[in-house]
Amino acid sequence: MLNNVKIKWIHSLEHKKYRQQYGLFVAEGDKIVGDLIKLLSCRLLVATNDWLCSNPGIEAAEIIAVDKMTLNKVSSQKSPQNALGIFEIPQFELTSEVLSGKLSLVLDNVQDPGNLGTIIRVADWFGIEHVICSIGTVDVYNSKTVQATMGAIGRVKIHYTVLEPFLRNINLPIYGTFLEGDNIYTSALTAEGLVVMGNEGNGISDPVADLVNSKLYIPDYPFGKTGSESLNVSVATAIICSEFRRRLYGKTA
Amino acid sequence: MLNNVKIKWIHSLEHKKYRQQYGLFVAEGDKIVGDLIKLLSCRLLVATNDWLCSNPGIEAAEIIAVDKMTLNKVSSQKSPQNALGIFEIPQFELTSEVLSGKLSLVLDNVQDPGNLGTIIRVADWFGIEHVICSIGTVDVYNSKTVQATMGAIGRVKIHYTVLEPFLRNINLPIYGTFLEGDNIYTSALTAEGLVVMGNEGNGISDPVADLVNSKLYIPDYPFGKTGSESLNVSVATAIICSEFRRRLYGKTA
Repeated sequence: MLNNVKIKWIHSLEHKKYRQQYGLFVAEGDKIVGDLIKLLSCRLLVATNDWLCSNPGIEAAEIIAVDKMTLNKVSSQKSPQNALGIFEIPQFELTSEVLSGKLSLVLDNVQDPGNLGTIIRVADWFGIEHVICSIGTVDVYNSKTVQATMGAIGRVKIHYTVLEPFLRNINLPIYGTFLEGDNIYTSALTAEGLVVMGNEGNGISDPVADLVNSKLYIPDYPFGKTGSESLNVSVATAIICSEFRRRLYGKTA
Repeated sequence: MLNNVKIKWIHSLEHKKYRQQYGLFVAEGDKIVGDLIKLLSCRLLVATNDWLCSNPGIEAAEIIAVDKMTLNKVSSQKSPQNALGIFEIPQFELTSEVLSGKLSLVLDNVQDPGNLGTIIRVADWFGIEHVICSIGTVDVYNSKTVQATMGAIGRVKIHYTVLEPFLRNINLPIYGTFLEGDNIYTSALTAEGLVVMGNEGNGISDPVADLVNSKLYIPDYPFGKTGSESLNVSVATAIICSEFRRRLYGKTA
């Protein structure tokens, strides 16, 4: 039953502190809950009968069928849909072996929840298995980011770590974007490596920048024109991932 | 002076109806107002003395210096900064001649203000002069979009038109992205043409799709894997624009 203690517990997961304490996060929405429940361990599913009937065979430690009005009470959304799930935050190993042979993303203090969600969706599209976030990067399990990933949060492995020792001890090419970097279209790009993306306002922090061994630049057009400000970090990530993956397709037009 | 009539008039511009009636829109923020005032005709500038002192030589039909508390009264932002400008909505000619030899974007009912803003920023970065929006595309002069363009709204020419007759009468290659399209990395791409981007949920509408003569696809990786949902429309736009521009750089690695 959805008693007041449980409602309070669900709302407590809107705060990072409690998400970390319990190792749980909330996802809301008909589609995303249906997707995540196949990928992650679901501690509690709160859904309408209609949703449960159209998603047969789903599994969760506890399932509570409610009407929409009751769902509204536990939701943090403006317009709640028919399903809310409490999922266990997955833990993944982060070692050189795990990253070897793969392209991975490193996020240095990305702050906007929507940007982080979009970046994870991009990673998923381009088959990037690991996204390594600095401790200062916004929490991926906040509701805005979870929604923005459109389910990709269940497929991409997210790690939080202190970037400098991690990067110092990893034996992989480290790429990053800088205004003074080399044209990414004509630079050599390896199939394995780490691509560092920086903070929305400040870019890559100095200590992390010192560990980048290949500085790249997405050329504007016409090349070197003045005026254009910059690219949004999720957009820049997408262009870079696309260019790394393009190289693996062989011939170009 | 900032009397109540003027305050009410400024707030009326939060609505599309009045923006269209007066041909005006609002931009807020220290940097974006400073950028736009050099690019567009400014009907009214409301700013703090500090901002006016650090932006000498700016021109506007009317300038009102206010304290921050007064600025709060006209602002639609949660945390107003030091400058708000009322700008004239620019009008641009939309003909075959104007688009000839250039790559332009066509938006078929993009709905999210943030996505539209990010797309205009992407267009600006890649030197795309014209963005042609369907009548059903969200209004570019709403405050969320204006802010998301980061000033690019003053450099990129935005048109609203009924897409079908426009596309039917234009003598340029028309590209669009479709799940069943050809790999963009290996397709022939011309330096001039129109790239159609579709609605967030429904993609390109059928009547517009019928007018596309080159269907493209951004390959996921590994190619043809299942699971990944889709790419955000602004992210997809960025990847496509990047690939069109890359071809103009000549040799690739």
